[in-house]
Amino acid sequence: MLAHEVMERCRALAGFSEDSGSICRTFLSPPVRQVYQEVGRWLSLLGAESNIDAAGNFHALYSGTKPDSPRLLIGSHLDTVPNAGAYDGVLGVVLAIALIRALNGRKLPLAIEVVAFSEEEGVRFGIPFIGSRALVGRLGDDVLDRQDAHGISVRKAITDFALNPAEIPQAAIHANTLGYLEFHIEQGPVLENLGFPLGVVEAIAGQSRLEFIFEGRANHAGTTPMSLRYDAVAASAEWILTVEQLAQNTLGLVATVGSIQAKPGVGNVIAREARVSLDVRHRDDATRTGAVDDLVRKAGDIARRRGLSVRWNLLLDQKAVAMDPFLVNQITDASQRVGCQPQRMVSGAGHDAMIMAEKVPAAMIFLRTPGGISHDPAESVQVEDVAKAIECGVELLAQLASSTEFLARTQRA
Amino acid sequence: MLAHEVMERCRALAGFSEDSGSICRTFLSPPVRQVYQEVGRWLSLLGAESNIDAAGNFHALYSGTKPDSPRLLIGSHLDTVPNAGAYDGVLGVVLAIALIRALNGRKLPLAIEVVAFSEEEGVRFGIPFIGSRALVGRLGDDVLDRQDAHGISVRKAITDFALNPAEIPQAAIHANTLGYLEFHIEQGPVLENLGFPLGVVEAIAGQSRLEFIFEGRANHAGTTPMSLRYDAVAASAEWILTVEQLAQNTLGLVATVGSIQAKPGVGNVIAREARVSLDVRHRDDATRTGAVDDLVRKAGDIARRRGLSVRWNLLLDQKAVAMDPFLVNQITDASQRVGCQPQRMVSGAGHDAMIMAEKVPAAMIFLRTPGGISHDPAESVQVEDVAKAIECGVELLAQLASSTEFLARTQRA
Repeated sequence: MLAHEVMERCRALAGFSEDSGSICRTFLSPPVRQVYQEVGRWLSLLGAESNIDAAGNFHALYSGTKPDSPRLLIGSHLDTVPNAGAYDGVLGVVLAIALIRALNGRKLPLAIEVVAFSEEEGVRFGIPFIGSRALVGRLGDDVLDRQDAHGISVRKAITDFALNPAEIPQAAIHANTLGYLEFHIEQGPVLENLGFPLGVVEAIAGQSRLEFIFEGRANHAGTTPMSLRYDAVAASAEWILTVEQLAQNTLGLVATVGSIQAKPGVGNVIAREARVSLDVRHRDDATRTGAVDDLVRKAGDIARRRGLSVRWNLLLDQKAVAMDPFLVNQITDASQRVGCQPQRMVSGAGHDAMIMAEKVPAAMIFLRTPGGISHDPAESVQVEDVAKAIECGVELLAQLASSTEFLARTQRA
Repeated sequence: MLAHEVMERCRALAGFSEDSGSICRTFLSPPVRQVYQEVGRWLSLLGAESNIDAAGNFHALYSGTKPDSPRLLIGSHLDTVPNAGAYDGVLGVVLAIALIRALNGRKLPLAIEVVAFSEEEGVRFGIPFIGSRALVGRLGDDVLDRQDAHGISVRKAITDFALNPAEIPQAAIHANTLGYLEFHIEQGPVLENLGFPLGVVEAIAGQSRLEFIFEGRANHAGTTPMSLRYDAVAASAEWILTVEQLAQNTLGLVATVGSIQAKPGVGNVIAREARVSLDVRHRDDATRTGAVDDLVRKAGDIARRRGLSVRWNLLLDQKAVAMDPFLVNQITDASQRVGCQPQRMVSGAGHDAMIMAEKVPAAMIFLRTPGGISHDPAESVQVEDVAKAIECGVELLAQLASSTEFLARTQRA
């Protein structure tokens, strides 16, 4: 059964790691070459020859009925975080290969280009999506000059992998491309809670990241009456509850304070300063930025009422990205046809599909993630859900191959 | 004017420091010897000969009308925290000398023993009150064996200062002792807020220190809906507000969360763990322990309702110490006679008087502390308040010297 093979292959690729005993595979590290060789061997057996572009992305083309059949890109990324699970990214690449395999040599009026991005997690250079940026023409000197912890630049890492950074422009998406499809684990608890194997991603949420600094006055915890305190920890605690309440009362909004640091941060001194993070996400940009404005205002109100001050820095303001409506509908139909409730959802996490959507119609299918756990050795996926993903993908390919409307929608057209 | 001299002397002693440019004088460090020489010189000019006991405490006896006149100990400590102010501890010793000076050679039916404790702050060995412990017979091997950051034990530090640890028992309070009086800066904002120069300490608050660990589940900040979170930071924020509210609603209670640490502590991950400190103080032990029990219960309630767990460790449970009622009344009368509102108050901080009270009647007079600031170079005291303290002390000595009831109250009696 194909789904079992997919599981085995994900676990096999997990063996190629920078760290012994745990999975870690950052941008163009030595195990990446081994992974590419293994994946290339699987695809070669299916008649798809592979190549690596100048940004280190792996590609393999399973041709269509004609030499110039338009291409559908299917894939995900093969890099990982440190101490990773076996499925984040990898599963999307291995499922793409499984879909070709399910064709049993049959050719479609569209070619399938398997793409495995070299970098999505942002671990080695602190910025994500290096791989897919190259495909949309956004891998410029600003990124190429960035250095890792050892002072090695992206450019140097590419050269060390025997690739030529000057050829990055040729990594751009082929003009004859229909779109990009990505299978990925949900990395959240929604599908598990609903009891559904698959989800149809309608949009990738926009993100705001901020840092708030509440500033009060340090004082002796024993000698300062409650009425004469300017306690930065207490003020930030009040605001953290406000953040939580606003998100609970706003449909689809998630807001998180994951980091808090108190200064001086000792038990018998009232804190002078509390530095807290804020992460806000929503599919609708106006809802998100409105919530951020509201939380900034409320931080000011709380600080003022308590006699403290507060300042904040905006660290990230990333717009939401809609998935292609035609593809979303096609995936919805396909999943229904294979007996799945077509659960439309918003991805709270960023994905390569978000980058690819800048240039081509893009869509994603989520797989239920047990416990919502990802970026952890305990990350898993159920073989039955992988089987459903394959069924759905096969059905989707059949639908798309028979859609003259879709086949006409290439960049060239 | 004597008060100006007191200010100058405090500033002069500030010049004897382990650190250049800031004040730091830990247990038996080289500048302690210089301070003792200087203080000894001042007292010698007043006819009081000094000695150093085996715990490194400085003593000087200004004799009474008879060779065996009962003694009143007056003093404080001469060690400091790092980056200290010039008055914490030091002022109490210098004021004791000023009171003798104010006698202008006159003898009283009580002897005045100036005592300057070698260690109160607990900086070098991590435990406070090493000096006064010796006077009450509680400086045992457990303390003597403790080592500083360089592996030097208390015992070794004593030997290095050319003192003999075997003689510590002789440092015990003389049997013919009437009591202990300590002037100290308030280190809090109460007197400043009331506009009063002096405060009469009725009791030193008991203290509870605990650590609470809220444990939830780490999850992706983008993919986990609000309803499916087990957020340790949000839970602890709710509890921190509960702590603040309970203290605000309980007369005389102070409760502080000065430290909070989130794990993993990054902005885009819901915190799995939050570790928060709790410091609770009150003059009444039952009120304090009742509040702690209540806060433990509320932590459990909050954790349970949110699907988290919480555990806690009790780090300190120190009982409140009452000051001697007779001395408190005498100080109240004396301060009224010199035109001060006799503000009775509870010390939220620990002091040597708390240790001395184990063996002899003890009392404290607080001086208004601008901004409530202490343990900081900005620590200060107003010369007018020092003048009032001297006036009050002189009056108090006159009262005590004329009280046959008090003079009969020695340990020997």
